[in-house]
Amino acid sequence: MSTYLAPPIPPMRIEMADTMLAPEGPTLTRRLSDLDGLFRDEDAWRSRRDAGNDVVYSVLSSPVPETPRELPQSITTINPGTCAEEFYMTKGHQHPDPQGEIYLGLSGIGGLLLFDGDQSEFIEMAPSVIGYIPPGWAHRSINTGPEPYRFLAVYPGSAGHDYEWVLRHGMGRRVLHADSGHDLVPYRTATK
Amino acid sequence: MSTYLAPPIPPMRIEMADTMLAPEGPTLTRRLSDLDGLFRDEDAWRSRRDAGNDVVYSVLSSPVPETPRELPQSITTINPGTCAEEFYMTKGHQHPDPQGEIYLGLSGIGGLLLFDGDQSEFIEMAPSVIGYIPPGWAHRSINTGPEPYRFLAVYPGSAGHDYEWVLRHGMGRRVLHADSGHDLVPYRTATK
Repeated sequence: MSTYLAPPIPPMRIEMADTMLAPEGPTLTRRLSDLDGLFRDEDAWRSRRDAGNDVVYSVLSSPVPETPRELPQSITTINPGTCAEEFYMTKGHQHPDPQGEIYLGLSGIGGLLLFDGDQSEFIEMAPSVIGYIPPGWAHRSINTGPEPYRFLAVYPGSAGHDYEWVLRHGMGRRVLHADSGHDLVPYRTATK
Repeated sequence: MSTYLAPPIPPMRIEMADTMLAPEGPTLTRRLSDLDGLFRDEDAWRSRRDAGNDVVYSVLSSPVPETPRELPQSITTINPGTCAEEFYMTKGHQHPDPQGEIYLGLSGIGGLLLFDGDQSEFIEMAPSVIGYIPPGWAHRSINTGPEPYRFLAVYPGSAGHDYEWVLRHGMGRRVLHADSGHDLVPYRTATK
């Protein structure tokens, strides 16, 4: 695995192809076991974790570091699947330093769920769609389709990741599989 | 023409298609007459300006404003062409607030020329290539091909645009048409 560059960062040409960035930085892999407390049906999550422990998503970063004044990028791939009826999704996070971010759909279909602690919004994502995440909105991505859902993220290096915020406040709504595609339902915390 | 939104900005779904962003913000059009003092052959520039005054490039912005903490985006289309042997290009600018930026090639081929006042770098751009512009590097885009060259820019809203910097300091090198494709030559200021 490669790592982030140390500043000062030189001008760079970064090629994007399928699930590849070249040159590449760190890769992060999230399995069901990494999503403790996030799925609505905790019994289903526990048994799926103990039997297979699927990779839910991976995040491949460019070598541009997460430091102030830089503008790092990453490609997230969320596998298709559900835990009980809840679609595979990212943990979701809030930026400790409130900064905007964009997601650009690359392949597959999905959703971008946003929550500011009061209102939630859901943006349907597809290739060539930009999802704009304003400062102050927690965000989670969901694969709502049968193929891997992949998107490019671009975000200020100072933004940071607060995952605890989502455990404390939720995301406003959940995205469940439905015959029509997907249903948005009230969040409710995990059933114990 | 639409305009930038006023903060606070809501979460947004922005569709990208050909030279379109929907919803869209302001569009800026640059003709040869807007590139005074930038082409090497000033006599050729003046006569081409007086006879036709081609549109050299246009910049279509999303509605996300250029204000701190937001992350605006734009699509630039540089038309194919040359003035004397110098390829059509953007004015080039430096960020008064030194912040990184990315360009993502969408169609056609081109180049990203960077200059920090001392060194210059040239990045060949094509679809699915990310050009990374570190903080502190002035940047100019060039169409080196026969078709329009189009790219998505993503940049922190606080960055700003200093065009005077390029008039004072140049860009280190120029990009000229050559049988082999393109040549990089020393900058030299405009001939009077």
